[in-house]
Amino acid sequence: MKVYIENLSFETIIGILDFERTTPQQVIINLSFKYKFNNDSKEFVNYAEVANLIETLMKEKQYLLIEDAILDLKKELKKAFYIKKIKLKITKPNIMTNCLVSVSNK
Amino acid sequence: MKVYIENLSFETIIGILDFERTTPQQVIINLSFKYKFNNDSKEFVNYAEVANLIETLMKEKQYLLIEDAILDLKKELKKAFYIKKIKLKITKPNIMTNCLVSVSNK
Amino acid sequence: MKVYIENLSFETIIGILDFERTTPQQVIINLSFKYKFNNDSKEFVNYAEVANLIETLMKEKQYLLIEDAILDLKKELKKAFYIKKIKLKITKPNIMTNCLVSVSNK
Amino acid sequence: MKVYIENLSFETIIGILDFERTTPQQVIINLSFKYKFNNDSKEFVNYAEVANLIETLMKEKQYLLIEDAILDLKKELKKAFYIKKIKLKITKPNIMTNCLVSVSNK
Repeated sequence: MKVYIENLSFETIIGILDFERTTPQQVIINLSFKYKFNNDSKEFVNYAEVANLIETLMKEKQYLLIEDAILDLKKELKKAFYIKKIKLKITKPNIMTNCLVSVSNK
Repeated sequence: MKVYIENLSFETIIGILDFERTTPQQVIINLSFKYKFNNDSKEFVNYAEVANLIETLMKEKQYLLIEDAILDLKKELKKAFYIKKIKLKITKPNIMTNCLVSVSNK
Repeated sequence: MKVYIENLSFETIIGILDFERTTPQQVIINLSFKYKFNNDSKEFVNYAEVANLIETLMKEKQYLLIEDAILDLKKELKKAFYIKKIKLKITKPNIMTNCLVSVSNK
Repeated sequence: MKVYIENLSFETIIGILDFERTTPQQVIINLSFKYKFNNDSKEFVNYAEVANLIETLMKEKQYLLIEDAILDLKKELKKAFYIKKIKLKITKPNIMTNCLVSVSNK
């Protein structure tokens, strides 16, 4: 099965510019991952826990670069859940006035 | 030929939480599949029948997990129509307040 | 180079139902194709001519099935332009009340 | 890491028609590229510089064909930044009244 958590949006401190360290800005997270659904045991991945972990970690760790966030979140998600083929894209929708800027791990 | 049924939206009982068993919630279905169009016999897949079967089955069976719905719907679609390479994505747009949650079979 | 003609929208007669033969309905065409741009001769594909040919053919031929339209349009586009890897998707946005229905050649 | 600069939008002179040489028109740029993020040195690609270089070059060079713009911008981006797998799509949203026209390098 492939799970999608799309347009997960909240405010957090992220970035290396002076104002980015003091003023929270909106981020938008798009995540997908695969996992093996066991139809007998009905074991499944709780999408709410995945979304909450991402939001909690980003607010706690206040990453400098989006690249740092992607590497660390991917590591923590793999530790907490039995999932694979994680694709994680983080967007700063308001850092540029005339475009959307994002980074993903692949 | 590849057929797309996009943003098929209706309300149904789905989910394992208490309120999800009593209160219908909106789901959004995105489906694509391939089939061999025979230009001589003009045999084709009736997209309205496909969409209606999905809606009928989901309302009747009131699946617990989205994963259950995907596995069963895929099986029923293969039984009812001569189609292949089915990709089925089911979204619960309102179960989380700050993101869209979906599961697909691939 | 890859060229995209997206959301090309107009009204035409298309379909096999009785009312579809008498009442024009909206269609949305999404097309992409590749061609070899020659940087010396500056020969290029005129996207306006491509879009106009699709609209003209669909209005003239009033296809029965979307599948018929896709096969014939692909043939005519290949005849008229030196292009390849044509992907053609035709959407009937209003034929179903709760979803978008489309067919593409791949 | 993969970086996305999406919906970068501004007005510029571009095109081969008479009015296109005298009247600026809106363009929308969608760009993605890959680069090797070095987690030790924290060297990263500055997305603001990438977006600004594209806008500056397009306004200065006033390309004739979108194809010319794509080839030249790709060359200049490779010269200025250590990036690879550049995908560059340029859209003229207003040149046709009933569709969006774009060209990309792949």
